[in-house]
Amino acid sequence: MNANPAATSRDHTVARRVALVGLGNVGRAVAKILCERNDGLLRLTHICNRNFEQKKQRWAAELSIPSDVIWTDDLHKILVSDADIVVELIGGLTPAEELVRGALNGGMSVVTANKQLIARHGPDLLALASATGCQLEYGASVAGGVPVLPALRTGLCGDRLHGIAGILNGTCNYILSRIETARIPFSEALEEAQARGYAEADASEDLDGGDARAKLSILALAGLQVRVAPEDIRARTIRPVDAVDFDYAAELGCTIRQISRADLKADTLFAEVGPSLVPTDSPFGRVQRNLNLVLTSGKYGGDMAFLGAGAGGDPTAVAVVSDLMAVAESFAAGPRPRRALQFASPEVSCDFETPWYLRLVVKDQPGIIAGLASILSTHKLNIDAVLQKPGFDKGNLPFVITLEPCRDSQLHPALQEMSALPFALRPTLALPILR
Amino acid sequence: MNANPAATSRDHTVARRVALVGLGNVGRAVAKILCERNDGLLRLTHICNRNFEQKKQRWAAELSIPSDVIWTDDLHKILVSDADIVVELIGGLTPAEELVRGALNGGMSVVTANKQLIARHGPDLLALASATGCQLEYGASVAGGVPVLPALRTGLCGDRLHGIAGILNGTCNYILSRIETARIPFSEALEEAQARGYAEADASEDLDGGDARAKLSILALAGLQVRVAPEDIRARTIRPVDAVDFDYAAELGCTIRQISRADLKADTLFAEVGPSLVPTDSPFGRVQRNLNLVLTSGKYGGDMAFLGAGAGGDPTAVAVVSDLMAVAESFAAGPRPRRALQFASPEVSCDFETPWYLRLVVKDQPGIIAGLASILSTHKLNIDAVLQKPGFDKGNLPFVITLEPCRDSQLHPALQEMSALPFALRPTLALPILR
Repeated sequence: MNANPAATSRDHTVARRVALVGLGNVGRAVAKILCERNDGLLRLTHICNRNFEQKKQRWAAELSIPSDVIWTDDLHKILVSDADIVVELIGGLTPAEELVRGALNGGMSVVTANKQLIARHGPDLLALASATGCQLEYGASVAGGVPVLPALRTGLCGDRLHGIAGILNGTCNYILSRIETARIPFSEALEEAQARGYAEADASEDLDGGDARAKLSILALAGLQVRVAPEDIRARTIRPVDAVDFDYAAELGCTIRQISRADLKADTLFAEVGPSLVPTDSPFGRVQRNLNLVLTSGKYGGDMAFLGAGAGGDPTAVAVVSDLMAVAESFAAGPRPRRALQFASPEVSCDFETPWYLRLVVKDQPGIIAGLASILSTHKLNIDAVLQKPGFDKGNLPFVITLEPCRDSQLHPALQEMSALPFALRPTLALPILR
Repeated sequence: MNANPAATSRDHTVARRVALVGLGNVGRAVAKILCERNDGLLRLTHICNRNFEQKKQRWAAELSIPSDVIWTDDLHKILVSDADIVVELIGGLTPAEELVRGALNGGMSVVTANKQLIARHGPDLLALASATGCQLEYGASVAGGVPVLPALRTGLCGDRLHGIAGILNGTCNYILSRIETARIPFSEALEEAQARGYAEADASEDLDGGDARAKLSILALAGLQVRVAPEDIRARTIRPVDAVDFDYAAELGCTIRQISRADLKADTLFAEVGPSLVPTDSPFGRVQRNLNLVLTSGKYGGDMAFLGAGAGGDPTAVAVVSDLMAVAESFAAGPRPRRALQFASPEVSCDFETPWYLRLVVKDQPGIIAGLASILSTHKLNIDAVLQKPGFDKGNLPFVITLEPCRDSQLHPALQEMSALPFALRPTLALPILR
């Protein structure tokens, strides 16, 4: 029908030329899937990586990479190449940001799995893509292969979402569910995770919530249409959580997970990341190992849950290749307009109102409960229960107080006073109880 | 930038004109969301329904439907109107099929929630849409608001799926989970579901699997790229399942759910719908009330789960409006090519290999086990366990035999012989045990 010779760039029988930058775990899986598919929609044409000669020798045959693929370690060579789409799998901000901006400015579309880049510069890069008539897709930047970002963009766009919560960090979930199952100390669970490759040598970014809050910021962008910088989201570390906390949580019918949550209420985005008590028989409580779970809450559609492998080369590569297919499709039809490029910038608060779990470690002596109760009462905080399991060393005694719902801001000054009491051996661990 | 005056039909600042056909539960929710959104992307222009005057009087004000919307009961008037998109919410094949074909032939895009229509004519209608340069979206036809079809089309398209399984019928799940929780007879659970509006007066389509197999056929189309007619998928009824089966299932760590499953292996599609034993602590076992759950299995991405409200006006309307937004977007960019319009037509088989749960009801007498064991042994079927709970009437005694994995075709002749034994009071109920 469309016999217009000028329309060749829209001819979807022409395979789109793909430059892959970063041949790590995910990059290799992307290369493998592209070379296996070989369906005429996408064609791998360039691979860029440091020490590309070594990489080529090690992987070219194993991944069945065609001999006409151009290998390089020079990002500039990619930017001036004839590739239609650049897949950015370098990670981090430098030089990934420069590459992505360069590609978009040069009229190339971009697919990225880079959560730091999108969390920090997502709105600007989407605006740049829109201005240059290119596509920028980032479905792999959160929750690996769990298709939550595509679902937010397509099947849920007709809803008006007001809440997103998730288990977004596989390292934390592996560690917490291992402590839960084996009742081993935190340090041992961390070492085990490192030995099995589920945690890096320096796992701070995972344990202290930096990774999860970057992902939460992207989910808030895509699902709630709000712009929130990762550093504006409070992150609490999981390091003080120990086996004894799972004993006490179990008394409350709960277990402990690192939960990332964002609720949009009027002009405020309530958001935080951190270890939280969740009912053992809830969707969150049942997520084991390194799986990811995302729950969305919408005005019309109610609650939805998405569960799957949150990381790993192959699942993440599925998200990258799915994005590549979406971009390749859009070539055939010309640039697709993006909706929701207007993002709100609400005030960000971590002042959720919830019941609380407070775990203290004290040197046992008379008057402890009286001293704590007095502080709590001064701050108008109501005790729900006091739990003390038998069998602990009286010189190093962990016990738990739960509080009726109150705001974070109301609890915080009381916590400081409690931790300063002479019998307190460690700062009080305060975890929200999510029902 | 694009100042070409001929490009107005691609101008995405023009709201797309939407004709809504069918103002039932879902239709009203779609109208409400469209009128509330009022975002310049979609504009409700026509409503078509029988007795439209009554409907208009009853709903126009409550749903804030603008006064310039044209109401009619004449489908032909819709087909010759200036609407850009027809939303078909009539259900059933007649006159829905005629409407959808008419709209596509007339250059209108179509959004439908009609599972019977897509299950039966999906591939043809998609081909017609492609030929006329229109869009046909059917995201609401399976699992209501759970965005599994959009996820298959977008976030999972980079994978190669080989299996789909789901709890797709809210009526069956309500009834089975009620029997599970309250241990009431099947008939009582059905009456309760009817009283609460979860089951129709004639619930055969739900109970006997007709509804679920139509949905499975659509999931197989969208996820596995295969064309399978609903009637080629074996459907077993849930009617013989009773409270006692939940007692025996619990002994095996299981509960009972209506499961729809499709596995593509080489050139055969194994598919069936029916009550099945699933572990109590599995994702399927934990689905309560009228929720829907869909699991997908892919070559690269592994297993994914999607959970949410499978029915109801508002959640289903979210799926419809999301599809409308996708279509409206594509107007701005011109017709989008559909991929995967080639569907395979594999052989369809229900000959799964699984362990089995056989529940017999007998008049107790000596030699029962010997008689049954002899038949099973003749057919080379291995008994895994014999369960007989105490306390039943010996004249009407339910007991259970579980079998080691065997094919359906191997089991079937044995079942017929067992049901013909003189002490058998009812046909043997055979349920697959899914692990």
